[in-house]
Amino acid sequence: MTDHAFDTDTAVERTGDHRYATALTDRWGALGGTPNGGYMLAVALRALAQDMPHPDPLVVSAHFLRPGAVGPGEVVTEVARAGRRVATGEARLSQDGKETVRLLATFGDLGSADGRTEILNAPPDLPPPDETPDVLEGGVMPGVSITEQVEYRTPRPPGWATGARGGDPQIEFWMRFRDGRDPDPLALAALVDAAAPAVLDLGVPGSATLELTVHLRARPAPGWLACRAYTRHVIGGYHEEDFEIWDSQGTLVAQSRQFALLPG
Amino acid sequence: MTDHAFDTDTAVERTGDHRYATALTDRWGALGGTPNGGYMLAVALRALAQDMPHPDPLVVSAHFLRPGAVGPGEVVTEVARAGRRVATGEARLSQDGKETVRLLATFGDLGSADGRTEILNAPPDLPPPDETPDVLEGGVMPGVSITEQVEYRTPRPPGWATGARGGDPQIEFWMRFRDGRDPDPLALAALVDAAAPAVLDLGVPGSATLELTVHLRARPAPGWLACRAYTRHVIGGYHEEDFEIWDSQGTLVAQSRQFALLPG
Repeated sequence: MTDHAFDTDTAVERTGDHRYATALTDRWGALGGTPNGGYMLAVALRALAQDMPHPDPLVVSAHFLRPGAVGPGEVVTEVARAGRRVATGEARLSQDGKETVRLLATFGDLGSADGRTEILNAPPDLPPPDETPDVLEGGVMPGVSITEQVEYRTPRPPGWATGARGGDPQIEFWMRFRDGRDPDPLALAALVDAAAPAVLDLGVPGSATLELTVHLRARPAPGWLACRAYTRHVIGGYHEEDFEIWDSQGTLVAQSRQFALLPG
Repeated sequence: MTDHAFDTDTAVERTGDHRYATALTDRWGALGGTPNGGYMLAVALRALAQDMPHPDPLVVSAHFLRPGAVGPGEVVTEVARAGRRVATGEARLSQDGKETVRLLATFGDLGSADGRTEILNAPPDLPPPDETPDVLEGGVMPGVSITEQVEYRTPRPPGWATGARGGDPQIEFWMRFRDGRDPDPLALAALVDAAAPAVLDLGVPGSATLELTVHLRARPAPGWLACRAYTRHVIGGYHEEDFEIWDSQGTLVAQSRQFALLPG
């Protein structure tokens, strides 16, 4: 735990057996002001981590039941199985007696993952962060408070940012916490949902996440994160978004996919 | 429900409020004889479907806690939220008092998905099924009973089938139930796990699934299913497997990703 905004704002306090109190802040708001889904996921996951016998989330699947709100919340956790190598648990985040997020997560130890490695993919092709333009041109997006916490840089700004919607829902960019907090697996599980959806490039106004699964693949090195987000299938208004995060050393550290619904 | 093997073998009987009895059969065995993970997922999902107010699973995330066994089991379900458009629930499959699979699933109505459609991908490039060789040359794989239920055809057999391991963990192939049962969303949720892992082409002996998320994208047309399976990142022994199923009309009907661990 640090004094950085992400840690302060995802803090949970144990109030009983498998029960944690929390408070969602107004610093991680999505368009419309409701708390970002990845932020809510991280709060529930931080509570569950207290009860897990292994240090790292490996795979997290979260279903979003209702929008969250700024204010107090409660997380109830359960250990489904605690094994020698991995353990699986469940967390339910509720606010005002209504459940907003339910997730399952399997934990393990990324520090002892010493099996085979084969990568048939490459990190995003980006110039160094210092030579890459800020997507928001040094500002923030009004009414979207998460852009006050997270910084984005890309040489190829998405169509929604330039006014020229290209019909090509894929983006590559650098991302980091503005306050200098370095990434860790918990933060990665939030950051896979911290950028504007790639599907905006099709000219849609937004998208509602129904489910988000994150694979945590390695503990990230400090520094900037190279990200790739893309959507390949929009069918009847439903779409997936794939997201990859590579760390400053060029290692794939997180991979996620969400299932979302366009408004309409 | 039909008399086809898949329906008979995933049948559940209501025994109480949100409680269902089932029996895993020996006809869906993976290598080693334990029931296939997708088959177990389908049993739990079929029970949950009884309690959902919407007809189709849209997204299912299953965590595998222990290997299953041939024999009786119980599924306990819970409705987390039932909304007008979508509903989310949970199912837990246990055998002998030990939980083997826990899943969350969001249901909706694929028949009323009338929003935008944009596809930036193409179905597998396969010759017609009648002109495509059977992967198992008309036989089955001894000791892997699921190959008695499911048929696979491909013009480019995977390395593990030819003895020439190519180091290229991607495969495209046709798949169908041997007994003529046509696919539906429930069957697709099982079939995404019904083929040998693509990662076998790297020369590994097998892989244990920790988590499997399936997106059901459309109700499939009758007939053969065109499949694409691939792994792009093996890191420290952990890997993902991506799987797409396209129906006989060329529509993407299911997309899945699993998180798995190589033995060792």
